[in-house]
Amino acid sequence: MAPVRTLTIAGSDSGGGAGIQADLKTFTSLGTYGLTVITALTAQNTLGVDAIEAVSPAFVRQQLKSVLSDLGADCIKTGMLANKDIINAIADALDETYGAQWPALIVDPVMVSTSGHKLLEDDAIDALKTRLLPHATLVTPNMPEAKILASLDTRDIDGLADEELMQRYCQAIAGAGCDVIVKGGHLKGDIVLDLLFQHEDDSFTRIEHSRIETTSSHGTGCTLSAAICAYYAQTHNVEQSVRSASGYVHRALATAYPMGSGHGPVHHTHSIEHRIVPLPTAQDPFPFTSMLIESCDDLWQRYTRTNAFVRGIQTGKLPVSAFVYFLRQDYLFLLQYARIFLLAIFKSTTLEEMQEAAQTVLNIFREASMHIERCKKWGITEQEFHQTREAFHTVGYTRFVMSESTKGGLLELKLATAPCLIGYGVIGKVLAADPATNTTSNPYLEWIHEYAGEDFQHAVVLGQSSLEKIGRKLVGSTEAFENAKAIFREAVKLEIAFFEQALQEHPEDQEIEHEYVPANCASATRAPQTKLHAVLSTPFMSTSDTFMSGRCSKNASEAFISQTYIMSLCLARCIAMSLSKELSRFDPDVPTLVGHCLGTAASIRQLAQDRGVADVSNAQPSDITSAYCGWLIDIAVSRPRRYIQIAMSLRLQEQEIMSLRKSINRAGQHYPCQGDEEAQQIATHENAARFERAFADQFALC
Amino acid sequence: MAPVRTLTIAGSDSGGGAGIQADLKTFTSLGTYGLTVITALTAQNTLGVDAIEAVSPAFVRQQLKSVLSDLGADCIKTGMLANKDIINAIADALDETYGAQWPALIVDPVMVSTSGHKLLEDDAIDALKTRLLPHATLVTPNMPEAKILASLDTRDIDGLADEELMQRYCQAIAGAGCDVIVKGGHLKGDIVLDLLFQHEDDSFTRIEHSRIETTSSHGTGCTLSAAICAYYAQTHNVEQSVRSASGYVHRALATAYPMGSGHGPVHHTHSIEHRIVPLPTAQDPFPFTSMLIESCDDLWQRYTRTNAFVRGIQTGKLPVSAFVYFLRQDYLFLLQYARIFLLAIFKSTTLEEMQEAAQTVLNIFREASMHIERCKKWGITEQEFHQTREAFHTVGYTRFVMSESTKGGLLELKLATAPCLIGYGVIGKVLAADPATNTTSNPYLEWIHEYAGEDFQHAVVLGQSSLEKIGRKLVGSTEAFENAKAIFREAVKLEIAFFEQALQEHPEDQEIEHEYVPANCASATRAPQTKLHAVLSTPFMSTSDTFMSGRCSKNASEAFISQTYIMSLCLARCIAMSLSKELSRFDPDVPTLVGHCLGTAASIRQLAQDRGVADVSNAQPSDITSAYCGWLIDIAVSRPRRYIQIAMSLRLQEQEIMSLRKSINRAGQHYPCQGDEEAQQIATHENAARFERAFADQFALC
Repeated sequence: MAPVRTLTIAGSDSGGGAGIQADLKTFTSLGTYGLTVITALTAQNTLGVDAIEAVSPAFVRQQLKSVLSDLGADCIKTGMLANKDIINAIADALDETYGAQWPALIVDPVMVSTSGHKLLEDDAIDALKTRLLPHATLVTPNMPEAKILASLDTRDIDGLADEELMQRYCQAIAGAGCDVIVKGGHLKGDIVLDLLFQHEDDSFTRIEHSRIETTSSHGTGCTLSAAICAYYAQTHNVEQSVRSASGYVHRALATAYPMGSGHGPVHHTHSIEHRIVPLPTAQDPFPFTSMLIESCDDLWQRYTRTNAFVRGIQTGKLPVSAFVYFLRQDYLFLLQYARIFLLAIFKSTTLEEMQEAAQTVLNIFREASMHIERCKKWGITEQEFHQTREAFHTVGYTRFVMSESTKGGLLELKLATAPCLIGYGVIGKVLAADPATNTTSNPYLEWIHEYAGEDFQHAVVLGQSSLEKIGRKLVGSTEAFENAKAIFREAVKLEIAFFEQALQEHPEDQEIEHEYVPANCASATRAPQTKLHAVLSTPFMSTSDTFMSGRCSKNASEAFISQTYIMSLCLARCIAMSLSKELSRFDPDVPTLVGHCLGTAASIRQLAQDRGVADVSNAQPSDITSAYCGWLIDIAVSRPRRYIQIAMSLRLQEQEIMSLRKSINRAGQHYPCQGDEEAQQIATHENAARFERAFADQFALC
Repeated sequence: MAPVRTLTIAGSDSGGGAGIQADLKTFTSLGTYGLTVITALTAQNTLGVDAIEAVSPAFVRQQLKSVLSDLGADCIKTGMLANKDIINAIADALDETYGAQWPALIVDPVMVSTSGHKLLEDDAIDALKTRLLPHATLVTPNMPEAKILASLDTRDIDGLADEELMQRYCQAIAGAGCDVIVKGGHLKGDIVLDLLFQHEDDSFTRIEHSRIETTSSHGTGCTLSAAICAYYAQTHNVEQSVRSASGYVHRALATAYPMGSGHGPVHHTHSIEHRIVPLPTAQDPFPFTSMLIESCDDLWQRYTRTNAFVRGIQTGKLPVSAFVYFLRQDYLFLLQYARIFLLAIFKSTTLEEMQEAAQTVLNIFREASMHIERCKKWGITEQEFHQTREAFHTVGYTRFVMSESTKGGLLELKLATAPCLIGYGVIGKVLAADPATNTTSNPYLEWIHEYAGEDFQHAVVLGQSSLEKIGRKLVGSTEAFENAKAIFREAVKLEIAFFEQALQEHPEDQEIEHEYVPANCASATRAPQTKLHAVLSTPFMSTSDTFMSGRCSKNASEAFISQTYIMSLCLARCIAMSLSKELSRFDPDVPTLVGHCLGTAASIRQLAQDRGVADVSNAQPSDITSAYCGWLIDIAVSRPRRYIQIAMSLRLQEQEIMSLRKSINRAGQHYPCQGDEEAQQIATHENAARFERAFADQFALC
């Protein structure tokens, strides 16, 4: 969009708080392009004006002609004009350029500086009144200036109250054919009144602000008229511009930081902030994505380029068993991704956003069926494929994404899913283009070309555009970017772990039973509840005792405390979610339960402090903790309450929250169920036991 | 925080693209406070320099002394210095002020303008080299300037490649004791190379950018040195400052909008944006809240002051029946609010945020028990209280809040709950303070004092602070504020409807059966499924036929189409959520189902377009539609799939999605259940029927 052009014709203040410096800062802060015609130079600071040199009228005129002949102006403001020859030179130049139709003009009739220095010669008042005011949109005197411009007979105004006086000034000055705002800042009282008079409809508008006691008031008048000029150039509405400008100046006074030893400047730039996501350019059309990737440091390179799995794909030397393991896990991964993009439909606002998410669901379904086809070639039947159990890192990664997407909005969902989409796009494209890629005897070439192919690359561009759009809309502060970065970066880390998982040994107890078999009770017969009961009552060996005994290494104990703290927040979250879903009356146990959970978290944090452990609030979850947590949160969000009760029972036992434990132990009795449902509950419990064991094992140094 | 001070000593460019104008725009855009010492005035525009007037050396010196004696500078840059006397005046002033320890100094050795105009007299080069360079932190010549400053013997550099030449220039100039960056922009090639030489560790750093073809390059050199000055004042690191400044200038070139008919300015302000939530001041400590309230126009006043319910509370003339009705509904309202703040615990990041939300849950529990106590005084027993059925507007308001909180993150949750907290605080405070309030025979005085009391007012301040914090963090664009405003405003509207509801007649079919009785199957016996079956198979009179027949008024038909469109998006959302929660395999029906739902929405929108109905994408939900929608979404989020299937069945029937209908009709067979659960499913169906009837009734004009 073409910038709006605002021109100031005024003096220069070396101290930067008034004059064209204040005007340029105001224009910049309010979004207009600033042009200048300098009428005088001053050497000044917050204590006063040390020297003034007026510019020659001919050079003032030359500056004005240079600016107007090429760049033009949507609104002009005048400030310090020094003398009548300069005023005449300005008026001549404007007459020559525009005839009678000057651009919008805001006249700030500067006569005396804040520090008391005279800035306009006495014989210039007439020139101001006859040459400029008839062309002015608005003139902005303070009370002393208004008195001079109005030049009323003292007998007519003797004994008038302030506001009446302001009204009389307004009407007298407006006689020249312009609107007037008389600024009451010099008057006494807690409320500062500025009075706007609009001559065409003969109306007054009172603009009030509470007075701000501050020494940072240098340049207030310049700033107000510059702000009116900037707003008027954008809105063409006097009253609205005056109101906005007045609010801007009020905040500039209220937020000023003291500078210098006299009257410091107002805070011109309070209305702007640093742009977090830069504007896109042809060279960098996706700056938000670039920032996210840059924030990952070498992790991004490791994920897309240097990890052993990707290198194995490139050389073709990746063991087939690892690739098949990867594909089978990726299939389960995609199932969770389909769930997440179904959630994206839910979280969308417009039909278009919904359709975009639905298209992604469709793409995921297609990709999944290709995985099955591909595995058939390696001798895995479709049935075997479907029997795959989720490995820890598959659960960890996908439930992290699900958990961030549920806790947050669409932004968090897009951030958590972006590394997968963008990263596979990069891997495909780079490997396909790299001459070092083995293309003659590489069993994974087809896989590479699939991700390098037009379809997938097109999906990447769409996904990136949509990430950019939402990032530009919602990431407007450093803190918001820090959050965004943390989610993106964690997902990149989990991508790496997911690749590495395929290259490692896979003990069966690190796999998770699939629990989400749709219940079909109609076909089930009532089964004895003994099995579920037996499972739920099996005593689980507590790790807390061991770790809290002091017999463990300091590192292991510290890690144990940090990870237990993270788990305790996760449990509180899960309990809150499950209560939120099913709360049906003001059960007095609820606040107790919630208080207890948070209390446990607080105690663990206190314990950590007492033991001199680094602040647990900043602790990062380990991969296992992250997986355990994500698995629990997903159950709390997606499944009826009894499942999260079963899933949390062992952990709660660990936390020894006896009151909770009691309610959990009742779960089995409360929800007797049949067939499939019982099997699901047993699976949930068994998975919980696997997680609990893995959680303990991670501190194995002890 | 004290502003960082940057001083430019340079010429003035009336066109605003170079000189001190470019420097001030750059300083402002990069967050430093700009000071100026003007060495020369120019009358110029994008076509060239029309005239120059150098300032007297004495006045340059006077400006510098005024600035440094009071304000000081963290980093100084010099630009156009015009002649040797000015250079000597500057050096003298700096020597006098600082002795040998000058502040950081970036020297841009400007000699010729972009348009070819000479800006430094030939005999000034020596002064520059002997008086300024020895004190400079960095000097930033382009190739022609570097050649002059280096003044190497032509025989030594003949035939050198560009980069070697740059290296030689760097080393020669750095002999003065400063770092050097030679800018390669004047050289040919697609990549622009700037070469930085740091003399202390004798190291070169290459800074490359792709070349941007643009005529908007006026002031590039000034802008780069000003940017280096601004970054250096903040970081005190040459390499980092040069890199950041180089990126800033690159983007300023890439995003420039053409201005004037020659070489236009670069885009200085690309790095900033308008601050959406203003800085707080003593007068306005909660600016985000203020903006939200202002955006409600007169709605806020109507909610907190002028509606008949609040006026009745103030005069004491509100009928007791209306007040009791209100209290009973407010009790149910609070139950839903407790659910929402439990969800807030889930959505929180830190323990402190969780504790804050938990405290709110506790407060809500307390407030609810006070409602019961209060009603006892009016002769309502606790049991009667518990039998209250939710009225439409109670469902509508609370489920709207729940639905926004689930779709979005913590911000949306806080926005949707804020009008209740803040508004009741205002009502209590204003009524308690207003002399017009009946305080002698007012049965509602205790109620007023409760909300005016310290406890509640304290909770309001805490809630507002937390809303401010999250608003400042996340509302960083106009679009984000528009979303925020829409949620807040809708909640204010629903508050008004909630008050008004208590003053109206209340036909029983506008009340909703409570469905969330905790299942306790253990005590239930297997019941015959006939009743649920009978309910599900009752034919429901379709309204679509009537409305689509063309026999209705245009207004009614248009409203019908818009509201049906909104409902169709809601159904798609609910189906997506329920699939997301329970997806356990790549069921090929899923994409079909999702596609079908969105297809229906798209068809309705198309139908609306064909009939010339205003864009349905912008249609606002009616109170009934909003309530129906919120109720459905809450069920989709909180309850097992079978409930949302039952809840949607009548609406789907209306939409005549036969494929869906089939799957729904099976629900009864798939989920036979017992006792309470059956009762809940029947209640769900009956509530759906009430909503469906109310949905049709709202178009009753036909």
